[in-house]
Amino acid sequence: MSDITIIGTGNMARGLASRAVAAGKSVQLLAHEDKAKAEAIASELGGTFTTGVVGDPIDGSIVIPAIYFDASKTIATQYGDSLAGKVYVDITNPVDFSTFDGLAVPAGTSAAEELQKVTPAKVVKAFNTTFGGTLVSGAVSGQQLDVLIAGDDETAVKAVSDFASAASLNPVEVGPLRRAQQLEQTGFLNILLSANEALPAYQWNSALKFLPAV
Amino acid sequence: MSDITIIGTGNMARGLASRAVAAGKSVQLLAHEDKAKAEAIASELGGTFTTGVVGDPIDGSIVIPAIYFDASKTIATQYGDSLAGKVYVDITNPVDFSTFDGLAVPAGTSAAEELQKVTPAKVVKAFNTTFGGTLVSGAVSGQQLDVLIAGDDETAVKAVSDFASAASLNPVEVGPLRRAQQLEQTGFLNILLSANEALPAYQWNSALKFLPAV
Repeated sequence: MSDITIIGTGNMARGLASRAVAAGKSVQLLAHEDKAKAEAIASELGGTFTTGVVGDPIDGSIVIPAIYFDASKTIATQYGDSLAGKVYVDITNPVDFSTFDGLAVPAGTSAAEELQKVTPAKVVKAFNTTFGGTLVSGAVSGQQLDVLIAGDDETAVKAVSDFASAASLNPVEVGPLRRAQQLEQTGFLNILLSANEALPAYQWNSALKFLPAV
Repeated sequence: MSDITIIGTGNMARGLASRAVAAGKSVQLLAHEDKAKAEAIASELGGTFTTGVVGDPIDGSIVIPAIYFDASKTIATQYGDSLAGKVYVDITNPVDFSTFDGLAVPAGTSAAEELQKVTPAKVVKAFNTTFGGTLVSGAVSGQQLDVLIAGDDETAVKAVSDFASAASLNPVEVGPLRRAQQLEQTGFLNILLSANEALPAYQWNSALKFLPAV
């Protein structure tokens, strides 16, 4: 058994795995197809890892697919009832890449809510407003990253919140799962700023933060 | 003639008037009905003010109704063609206060876009993610407030951006007016955090900020 299962070997997977190692968590890292990619990250980060590929049994109690929304939906469907009781963290921003002008999920719902429809796992929205590169250190401009968290299951939200805290991040519990509608629009805004060459201050190294008054 | 016309005498009006004074701008401040309220703010802030009430001719080239969306729409309609050529800054978050669970404008549009339908002015979305109290000083935790700006007219966007800079704020031009859809969902999220008693770090004294990498 691992504390956390991360699916994927891209920037977000690497960033989240870095935070898991910082938190002292054991990680099962599943590559899509190429186990060597998972092994490379495990070797680089030096924590407690097991590696495998999608299709292997998931042994973490918190599952974080660090992949696009469509792929996450496929995987949630594929694993079916074996995800029951687990926390399924949706980090996606379902941007419509054909237009880059809006989200691909209909208004009045969200990627997180759509995922909840196809899995018995407890879906929690989180990490959709943090970039992969910034998660490696966990801070931007010397300030802790905010992790905005939405979910309907209190214990599931707490599990994600506790992980964020253990990883030296700042968890912010924003409300029920349908708040993912706001989180995804905010995440899209965050992406738009970084994708905008006229805004050199961002460029995927920035962080959305709610500054407290102190 | 004034540089800026601010309509309203609430917290946002006071905050924006504070920034205008800091920027050395002359301000026409119009109260809804009670001119004495406008005079009190002018007297308190000590800048270059003229005061009046809604219905008086608007003499600023930048008009900022610091009022709710519905009232702003009424005023835009009331002033009609006299707003042609002016910059009309929409600071509103059209929250559905009957549910506090979403926005009152339909999906696929925004308060800003709805206002543009009823006025010949150049509508610019801005200041919907900054709270009135924080605008008085212009900073939170010693960090400049971000002013997220969206609009279709380049010169109008630049006018608002220049005002923000002159007021020691950090303007961020996020894109065309339809980006107000993201800004309003993000503004709603910002409001939800401050309205949440379980999150004492915020409580209307916080600031949404995109931290740059450096």
